[in-house]
Amino acid sequence: MQSLLSLRTRIEAGTLTPRAAIALSEAAIAEREPDIQALVSCQTNPVVPERGPLAGIAVGVKDILDTADLPTQMGSPIYAGWRPRADAAAVTRLRRLGAVPLAKTTTTSFAFLDPTKTRNPHHRGHTPGGSSAGSAAAVAAGMLPLALGTQTGGSIIRPAAYCGVVGLKPSFGLLPTVGMKCSSWTLDTLGLFTAGVADAAHALALMTGRPGLDLPASDPGLPRIGIVLQDFCTPAEPEALEALLRVRTSAEAAGARLRDITLPAVFAEAFGLHGTIQDFEAAQALDWEYATHRVDLGPLLGAHLDAAQKISAAAYDASMKVAHRARRQLPDLFAEHDVDVILTLSAPGPAPEGYASTGDSRFNRLWTLLGVPCVTVPVGRTAIGLPLGVQTIARLGDDARALAAARFIEMLVHDSDR
Amino acid sequence: MQSLLSLRTRIEAGTLTPRAAIALSEAAIAEREPDIQALVSCQTNPVVPERGPLAGIAVGVKDILDTADLPTQMGSPIYAGWRPRADAAAVTRLRRLGAVPLAKTTTTSFAFLDPTKTRNPHHRGHTPGGSSAGSAAAVAAGMLPLALGTQTGGSIIRPAAYCGVVGLKPSFGLLPTVGMKCSSWTLDTLGLFTAGVADAAHALALMTGRPGLDLPASDPGLPRIGIVLQDFCTPAEPEALEALLRVRTSAEAAGARLRDITLPAVFAEAFGLHGTIQDFEAAQALDWEYATHRVDLGPLLGAHLDAAQKISAAAYDASMKVAHRARRQLPDLFAEHDVDVILTLSAPGPAPEGYASTGDSRFNRLWTLLGVPCVTVPVGRTAIGLPLGVQTIARLGDDARALAAARFIEMLVHDSDR
Repeated sequence: MQSLLSLRTRIEAGTLTPRAAIALSEAAIAEREPDIQALVSCQTNPVVPERGPLAGIAVGVKDILDTADLPTQMGSPIYAGWRPRADAAAVTRLRRLGAVPLAKTTTTSFAFLDPTKTRNPHHRGHTPGGSSAGSAAAVAAGMLPLALGTQTGGSIIRPAAYCGVVGLKPSFGLLPTVGMKCSSWTLDTLGLFTAGVADAAHALALMTGRPGLDLPASDPGLPRIGIVLQDFCTPAEPEALEALLRVRTSAEAAGARLRDITLPAVFAEAFGLHGTIQDFEAAQALDWEYATHRVDLGPLLGAHLDAAQKISAAAYDASMKVAHRARRQLPDLFAEHDVDVILTLSAPGPAPEGYASTGDSRFNRLWTLLGVPCVTVPVGRTAIGLPLGVQTIARLGDDARALAAARFIEMLVHDSDR
Repeated sequence: MQSLLSLRTRIEAGTLTPRAAIALSEAAIAEREPDIQALVSCQTNPVVPERGPLAGIAVGVKDILDTADLPTQMGSPIYAGWRPRADAAAVTRLRRLGAVPLAKTTTTSFAFLDPTKTRNPHHRGHTPGGSSAGSAAAVAAGMLPLALGTQTGGSIIRPAAYCGVVGLKPSFGLLPTVGMKCSSWTLDTLGLFTAGVADAAHALALMTGRPGLDLPASDPGLPRIGIVLQDFCTPAEPEALEALLRVRTSAEAAGARLRDITLPAVFAEAFGLHGTIQDFEAAQALDWEYATHRVDLGPLLGAHLDAAQKISAAAYDASMKVAHRARRQLPDLFAEHDVDVILTLSAPGPAPEGYASTGDSRFNRLWTLLGVPCVTVPVGRTAIGLPLGVQTIARLGDDARALAAARFIEMLVHDSDR
């Protein structure tokens, strides 16, 4: 994989020009893209800024985000060839930092569940996950050092875990969703895919103008970790649980303090209501597409929006009340158990076989609804080489702690790989 | 003015067809628009649905909201002739209800402060206010029974008051902003302009699928009212204060319970930080336009975004903390004073003379930041015929009470006019 920080170190040392760094991405795309199919479109001969803290960094932009110079097709024939007037806010910000938005990456139709053409770089025949399939796969295949994705259910953390890359879903609202095709204004969250945790922290710090989010090159410290297994939903697969157990053992051996946390009932309740909130809002957000192009929606999205027409405003309002209650209660949970972060699985198991499904978001939906920062880290592979991931989760606005704990786990895994 | 409910009563009685109702709007536009200049574009020979609870209702859509069949120009040459792919969610919803989005109404450039060409229907030479200038003026001039507007500072309540119509800024998030050009994701609120309070309540009930928001045709009841004068900012003009006093006197005479409320310090603090939040977010939301078309932004917006570049993330984060504190404290204020609604001025005075300014939003910014429902009602005229307005304000989510109290005041004013 291409590390954003390694590229930047070489560029700052003068041993690599920004133009040559972009050429590395272009060469990797030429080599891997025919097999992986992570991209929808790609710049040819892009203008490469010579300066800026992200000069030389090629970025993949999920095709649900507006770009003025590349089509924005939302993974849907309804937007075939569509050219927005403006770039999404995050894309403009990346340009200001010197980065090159080089390619649009595949998205499931309107970032929902209908699969893309993209393949998992670690195992042909397995899904890369979704909805940010292309962003996860492009980083995993070494084509790009940075990609933008979005999560409404589990669309950053799940594909990142399936593809063996770092996925960062920051606190709700930290990265602007302006210029993103909305599917739920309560849930839509913009985030990042990178090779390593420090790469993601560095990009987030620059993109948000918050230097405190950057990780120091030195020791991230010893986190106090609460392990959550979400016993209110179907249990995870043994391989995933074993990977989490290995992380636990190494973390304790390294001196971190771990304890088990059972989530109070309000969180189980909120978990069960995520779909009501998402679907009620999606029915409004995608109402023009549903009213005028029902037949061209993906089959899964179409059927989902059919059902969503029946959700009452009262059911939505009641669900939002529970969500607010759970959000208010979460800081107390961290305080009561005296933990910096929660650690749980990024997905119930490795990437499922086949391309009919993008996998299951049940380890993501609650945390998206709570708006809290989540970082997934690769923690090994299954017998057939499929990546597994765990995610660190912090309080709303405490992205720095989620990143530091993720970096701690990444270093543990790296040490044990030696 | 055209009353939405009166038109609908005639249509339901079979004495007016939807097509003929739309023709009334078309005729009024032909007569008044050359003078008022409230519209950017208008459908010719629109398809008029025969059925639906808003069949026969012509709607004005602020030109900051996407429409697939009419250009969407944001009040800016940067978007000259721009045609979005989809309708904004609220526009699709109106179509589903049978309404006809007939015209786009003028907006200041990106809903900021640079004035439009629109004139105040009540006094040539005075501003109609902004940023939803065209929507307010078109309803005031009797061209349309319903118009959509947006408020980030004071862009619904102020122009509605200046033009002598009802303006409704619902609770934050109640009407979806999907397909609205964002300037601040924390503040942007979609709302309505109508001839009367019951018209606005009826439209809001239908658009949100919440029948409980509709006003009963009968007595709205006696509200418990707390009067707020915002003594932390420059005092209002005498004519406006006198109008508020007259409302107070008639309300008490009618049996309502009124008391004065001095806002605790956190609200003054939040008031002062609205600009930091708006500008920090606008700098991101409009960053593509600023980076690529700085010279074509309005002069006021351009200068504002220049200054906004210097707002730090830390200043923004600190401001958001104060805003959250004020939001949490507001329900206690209502409870402590045992009031249903707050009553205050909609603007510091009548529409100022001239077209260089759209007026002052200091009686609006705090309430936009708090996300609470506000309804402005016309309460008389100045000596030279300019309308004055007062606004009712309720707790977040308590739009029904804000509407009922506004209806109560509207009926008082109507009675005293007799």
